Amino acid sequence: MANYRAPLRDMQFVFDEVLDAYATLQSLPSQREFGNDLGGAILEEAAKVAENVFAPLNSSGDKQGCQYDPLTKTVKAPDGFRAAYKQFAEGGWTALACSPEFGGQGLPHVLNMMVEEMLCSANLSLGMYPGLTHGAINALTAHGTRELQEQYLPKLISGEWTGTMCLTEPQCGTDLGLIRTRAVGQTDGSYAISGTKIWITGGEHDLVDNILHLVLAKLPDAPDSVKGISLFLVPKVLNDGSRNPVFCGGLEHKMGIKGSSTCVMNFEGAQGWLIGEANQGLRCMFTMMNSARLMVGMQGLGIAQSAYQISLGFARERLQSRSLSGPKAADKPADPITVHPDVRRNLLRQKVMIEGCRALAYFTGLHQDVAHDHPDAEVCQQADDLVQLLTPVVKAFLTDEGFNCANSGLQVLGGSGYTEDWGIEQLVRDSRITMIYEGTNGIQALDLVGRKLGLGGGRAVRSYFALVDGWLKSNADSAYVDAVRSALVQLQQATQWVASEGLKDAEQAAAAATPYLRLFALTSLAWMWARMAVVAQDKLDQGSPETQFYGAKLKSADFFMARILTETDSLLAEVRAGKATLMAFSDEEFAA
Amino acid sequence: MANYRAPLRDMQFVFDEVLDAYATLQSLPSQREFGNDLGGAILEEAAKVAENVFAPLNSSGDKQGCQYDPLTKTVKAPDGFRAAYKQFAEGGWTALACSPEFGGQGLPHVLNMMVEEMLCSANLSLGMYPGLTHGAINALTAHGTRELQEQYLPKLISGEWTGTMCLTEPQCGTDLGLIRTRAVGQTDGSYAISGTKIWITGGEHDLVDNILHLVLAKLPDAPDSVKGISLFLVPKVLNDGSRNPVFCGGLEHKMGIKGSSTCVMNFEGAQGWLIGEANQGLRCMFTMMNSARLMVGMQGLGIAQSAYQISLGFARERLQSRSLSGPKAADKPADPITVHPDVRRNLLRQKVMIEGCRALAYFTGLHQDVAHDHPDAEVCQQADDLVQLLTPVVKAFLTDEGFNCANSGLQVLGGSGYTEDWGIEQLVRDSRITMIYEGTNGIQALDLVGRKLGLGGGRAVRSYFALVDGWLKSNADSAYVDAVRSALVQLQQATQWVASEGLKDAEQAAAAATPYLRLFALTSLAWMWARMAVVAQDKLDQGSPETQFYGAKLKSADFFMARILTETDSLLAEVRAGKATLMAFSDEEFAA
Repeated sequence: MANYRAPLRDMQFVFDEVLDAYATLQSLPSQREFGNDLGGAILEEAAKVAENVFAPLNSSGDKQGCQYDPLTKTVKAPDGFRAAYKQFAEGGWTALACSPEFGGQGLPHVLNMMVEEMLCSANLSLGMYPGLTHGAINALTAHGTRELQEQYLPKLISGEWTGTMCLTEPQCGTDLGLIRTRAVGQTDGSYAISGTKIWITGGEHDLVDNILHLVLAKLPDAPDSVKGISLFLVPKVLNDGSRNPVFCGGLEHKMGIKGSSTCVMNFEGAQGWLIGEANQGLRCMFTMMNSARLMVGMQGLGIAQSAYQISLGFARERLQSRSLSGPKAADKPADPITVHPDVRRNLLRQKVMIEGCRALAYFTGLHQDVAHDHPDAEVCQQADDLVQLLTPVVKAFLTDEGFNCANSGLQVLGGSGYTEDWGIEQLVRDSRITMIYEGTNGIQALDLVGRKLGLGGGRAVRSYFALVDGWLKSNADSAYVDAVRSALVQLQQATQWVASEGLKDAEQAAAAATPYLRLFALTSLAWMWARMAVVAQDKLDQGSPETQFYGAKLKSADFFMARILTETDSLLAEVRAGKATLMAFSDEEFAA
Repeated sequence: MANYRAPLRDMQFVFDEVLDAYATLQSLPSQREFGNDLGGAILEEAAKVAENVFAPLNSSGDKQGCQYDPLTKTVKAPDGFRAAYKQFAEGGWTALACSPEFGGQGLPHVLNMMVEEMLCSANLSLGMYPGLTHGAINALTAHGTRELQEQYLPKLISGEWTGTMCLTEPQCGTDLGLIRTRAVGQTDGSYAISGTKIWITGGEHDLVDNILHLVLAKLPDAPDSVKGISLFLVPKVLNDGSRNPVFCGGLEHKMGIKGSSTCVMNFEGAQGWLIGEANQGLRCMFTMMNSARLMVGMQGLGIAQSAYQISLGFARERLQSRSLSGPKAADKPADPITVHPDVRRNLLRQKVMIEGCRALAYFTGLHQDVAHDHPDAEVCQQADDLVQLLTPVVKAFLTDEGFNCANSGLQVLGGSGYTEDWGIEQLVRDSRITMIYEGTNGIQALDLVGRKLGLGGGRAVRSYFALVDGWLKSNADSAYVDAVRSALVQLQQATQWVASEGLKDAEQAAAAATPYLRLFALTSLAWMWARMAVVAQDKLDQGSPETQFYGAKLKSADFFMARILTETDSLLAEVRAGKATLMAFSDEEFAA
């Protein structure tokens, strides 16, 4: 089993030593009281919840799955999930970063991301039930009327009720303009919602007594496009205790996250209330979506962390063949496989991706707190620009690498990894969905090139490059400055190409999107590794006794620059290859 | 469902038009009668078997799995498997490339590989039962006494019995020197075999009445290394009809290939007979292994082909959003997603990888036939060199890309791909094992750099490079000559680096192995694509009416050179990065 305390030291390193997050947070009005020891204490507790409450149900939940009863149209989550969720909610974890006005603890969003990482590392299926509730809380907080907020937020925040996001329909996934679910205004100001939604995470389950559905639907006179969708709140149980006619019509049978209920939801004239303005549903949805996307990135990171722990544990124990440089464990029949260069490559690719991704994610999360709450409007704007720019990068890259790490980990275990005995094949299956939900990673890449690069006329990306450039100038004599500079120049060349070619022809930008996002991510990770190396070197220079921890950081940075960052050349070349070879094929030629 | 006839045209293109395989085969004494229309006719029939016999049991076999009865120590394969196997064997398919001396049809090995591709495309689990039997047939044919051959080969070849390869033990996978299974000589010349083997594919099942185990074990006085292992034949049922004490102790529960029985086998003093000479088991094993490795590559290719068919079929039907260059299906609510550049990228990466891999695999398979049977010893040697060199490349690259294609295909389907409804998540799970069994892909890479590059003092690799170089010179005015030349130069530089650094320090070669193998494969595929483009262009110039087929070939070659071959820069850089950053970590630093 993975060791859920293992990443705590690194989490603290990134949060405190690299990002100096306490100082930043304490500059925000809402976080003045956030003490320097509070983050660590909370994460210690989260590790216990991960280990004692979430992890023990991970494999059993996968094997048992969710059960649908067609007679009652109810869903039973795997054994133990209800009790575990109750313990989790009672511990105050659902309320962590929520507004104190409605019973939340008002702690930083970045801390919530770190908790998500740990919990989903232990049990992604269970973590998704409270995880999706946050989208509902965010949308209600940002766009709900005071009355709806007072009515629903306290119980969502306390975890007594959970929430869903009902977007997808059979004919419409990415293209929400195709939504057919209808909302008809009633005399009492509410709406009657009718239609079918699919792939609704936590749409029905037995963890709590009420579920609040946030539903995209169209008003009768709405325009026939994404400009015609509105957001509604549709509770499973109404205030008078009666059952609202929204029923689960069945469960999806999936590759993984089998303990998470993925429901077909039928709205049969269910009573709902408008959230935000009519026809502004897309805007409201993105309030749910953006923060959910960062959270999905954390899921990828958490799974990668478990995969690394499992595969490292296996590799240190597994004796097979001798080191090419002579026996290392001469008293044993063979050496541990950690002596073999190719096994090390599989392990270290995981390690440096995980730690680099962690730094990038916390960096982004910290700016989310700043964007929400900094007293200076200009600082808020800059922080928000950065969060918007980096959100698709964090979502797509961390989930791509979550899957890659799970697969590298499985490969270290060989045949053992392919059996159910070690839990790593479940990580491969569970992590696979994170590349798809909350917008496929291809959609994230299109969001980056199509929407985020143009944010404020390119203001966001210019400001990010200036930030990296500024750091490089003020750390001109540090290690890796040349490597990061060289990657940054490639990223800027790619950005220039995408901007100028994309302006003439949007398909050029779309053709470049996926390799561009990866180039963006690797360059950002290179910067993070350079920053981490500077901090680690400083600590060693100051005589820190943690020579192994900081020494490993320097070696990891070396590894990243020498063996991972090499990919940027190829990515830039693919960006520049343009759309021609993609678009040349006729429909028939695909099948030829 | 995938269309199993779809690849027939491309198979024929590679076999006949690109490789001119009929002419080559007809130059071999054993294949003089192999008519120009025979290959196509057999493959047409194989497509029917794939579609009508194998495919219908693929999903049901996955869901039902194999059942172990601890009382009788027997295994029941999924419903329908026994009847399907019987039909398959009675159709003569098990005997296809086997020696006519023992009832085989004596057809080319390369044709057998093509059949394997089709069958495993439809149902990998079912395909593995006869697949593993070939290893036993090859070992018996090459190393068995005449008596053993006469006794066992006819029933293995007819498919009345199946065979296994019993190598792995709990403490020993890659490192066969650690084998503990013992063989003690008996007065009648047979041996008593005792020990436990794990992960034995088809170790026990109900498809046939007898199973012949080929078992690696140690004689009492054997050296304590791979030089001390011997190969034995151990039938489940002895000639007198009595049950030999070799029993299945249980089944593995796996991520995929659930219809294939993966057994723990306990040999309890079972009677066996030596195959080949004492302590020469490793050599005999490689006779089974090398051809099995090529077959595993075909499994990867077959799965990739199914993934492409499923995802292309989905993408052509799925309507979502409008083309960035304006509506393409204006009469429909949205355009098919094949209009979107990033979806095309996912589809085309599959298509060009599959067709390039197919060409490389058949090229290798054809040389296997030449190596077995050419009248000129020098030609045999050259062909055998080439097969040995390319076998790890075909095994590792085709299975890596089989898995990558399955994942790209799943991504095209988005959420639908993650459900069990479309069958593509099963392809991801099933294909994952092909990167592991018959030697993990990391071991393939080590085989390439550690054993195959040094073959005949570098003779094999020099001869391969000369072959590519010769082709480039005689096609100097063709398209892509510069691109292939440039990749070849990079591969030669990498080879030079691995050879010279590896000579000084074997860990340098091992550190480079995985990126080196991939660079080798991409360069080889570039050559294959250049060759295919020349043939396609010739056909078009000659006025062939198949403009779509040949036109697609030229566009695919364009795509490969512009958007896939770009990876070689990064791979060469990683090869040259050397072992330093891999080996720097202490054991404790991995966990820091």
